[in-house]
Amino acid sequence: MSSDPQYITSTQNPKIKHLLALHEKSSERRKSGLFVVEGRRELEHCIAAGYEVESVFKSASAASAADADFIVSPHVYERIAYRGTTEGIIAVVKAKKHSLENLLPALARLEETLDPSRTREGAGEGPLFIVLESVEKPGNLGAVLRSADAAGATAVIVCDPLTDLYNPNLIRASIGACFTVPTVACSSEDCIRFLKDHSVQILTAQLQDSELYYDTDMTGPTAIVMGSESTGLTDLWRQAADAHIRIPMLGRLDSLNVSVSAAILLFEAVRQRRIMGK
Amino acid sequence: MSSDPQYITSTQNPKIKHLLALHEKSSERRKSGLFVVEGRRELEHCIAAGYEVESVFKSASAASAADADFIVSPHVYERIAYRGTTEGIIAVVKAKKHSLENLLPALARLEETLDPSRTREGAGEGPLFIVLESVEKPGNLGAVLRSADAAGATAVIVCDPLTDLYNPNLIRASIGACFTVPTVACSSEDCIRFLKDHSVQILTAQLQDSELYYDTDMTGPTAIVMGSESTGLTDLWRQAADAHIRIPMLGRLDSLNVSVSAAILLFEAVRQRRIMGK
Repeated sequence: MSSDPQYITSTQNPKIKHLLALHEKSSERRKSGLFVVEGRRELEHCIAAGYEVESVFKSASAASAADADFIVSPHVYERIAYRGTTEGIIAVVKAKKHSLENLLPALARLEETLDPSRTREGAGEGPLFIVLESVEKPGNLGAVLRSADAAGATAVIVCDPLTDLYNPNLIRASIGACFTVPTVACSSEDCIRFLKDHSVQILTAQLQDSELYYDTDMTGPTAIVMGSESTGLTDLWRQAADAHIRIPMLGRLDSLNVSVSAAILLFEAVRQRRIMGK
Repeated sequence: MSSDPQYITSTQNPKIKHLLALHEKSSERRKSGLFVVEGRRELEHCIAAGYEVESVFKSASAASAADADFIVSPHVYERIAYRGTTEGIIAVVKAKKHSLENLLPALARLEETLDPSRTREGAGEGPLFIVLESVEKPGNLGAVLRSADAAGATAVIVCDPLTDLYNPNLIRASIGACFTVPTVACSSEDCIRFLKDHSVQILTAQLQDSELYYDTDMTGPTAIVMGSESTGLTDLWRQAADAHIRIPMLGRLDSLNVSVSAAILLFEAVRQRRIMGK
């Protein structure tokens, strides 16, 4: 980072124009391999996760100019800030790859500590994945990541995503969980192969032909798979499933937000693992 | 409703100006006792809940002009629509009172079916309330209502609310659950007295001095009380509580969205009641 920050007062400055393009266009993020992080807490989680920061923009009204590469006038900051209050800090950060291979070290650690005799009794530990197929709304994916963080999930795997993992709405809705929870993007085929290779049971959340989620043993290595809110799961996943599970809908409406469903299912796994582990 | 709808082409029309004021100002909603419902599904739930519709506005591009009191030009509709797609229908509806007394018939029904011998064994049924203290964001309250609908909660009680129950963001986030779930607004003091009078156990969601939620018996009449995301619960509620409960936070972030927390706690009550009821 520069020790002598540059002062920017125009929204026409090329650095500002590029930052805006990174905010608004997934194509620009893909092309450049960069994305934007806004807010002090989010940036802290991002750096803690080993991301490399390319440049830091601070508002001239921010509390401190320390570590800034660029100080921008309040007028410019207002233009580049995606949210209302972000403590006057926005960074451009280098993207990472999100491949299934990234999960191998964590899986190896979990498999090492797995006691096979306890697993057979359904009281094991092991990985706990959330898999989302064709998730449409970045905000929903971000909210799922927040639920996954709280439940201590091993990773969130996004299959055939219709959004990129660095969409600003995703980062915002996750309040930084996109950096604290390992995240993978891959095809459904690759994901199914990966789960089966590692003996992870596949539970698909679907209404038809399903059992109640709390009647399902989630103490062993488990992946909970959820479809998009509009179309549900594809046959590929239904056929790959070890069991189909559902949350009973006891009211008049017929759906829960996907991050709420994810949290209910993940915390049932947490409950079972802790109760059985006693 | 008029059989001969009036056609409106100007946003300066007094009906349109009043509708916009109802959208934007809680003071206008309070003064007139009216509020705005947008979208066909939401309006259906609203009417099913016994609300009285004052007037229906439809876009000239809507599929049908049936039941409309006013047909508005697409230009005007764009101005009055709070959301992107609402199937071209917006209604002005008469507000209702949301007092604790409204819950008495439902409570009486639940108490009638309560088997006292099973309750003593912790396997009873009975009311299940979500209580929110000083909730700030209408969207959060709407999302909690959606979770409460799914879990079949008896009612949502909002104590000392900082939002009115007919805020458009609330209605939108609830996807209509604000009409399907009985909702009460009252003071914390009145709510505590009501719960104690009806022998409903009070479980406060808080981090300090608390037990894990799944170790807590929720099979009897239960109220789950949650504070605002920023300040938590007041001492009034902490002292009124029969038990303090918490959801374990297993990740790096320290909070869940209030609607997610509500869903986890409500569905644990559902699980316990159904498992014990077997």
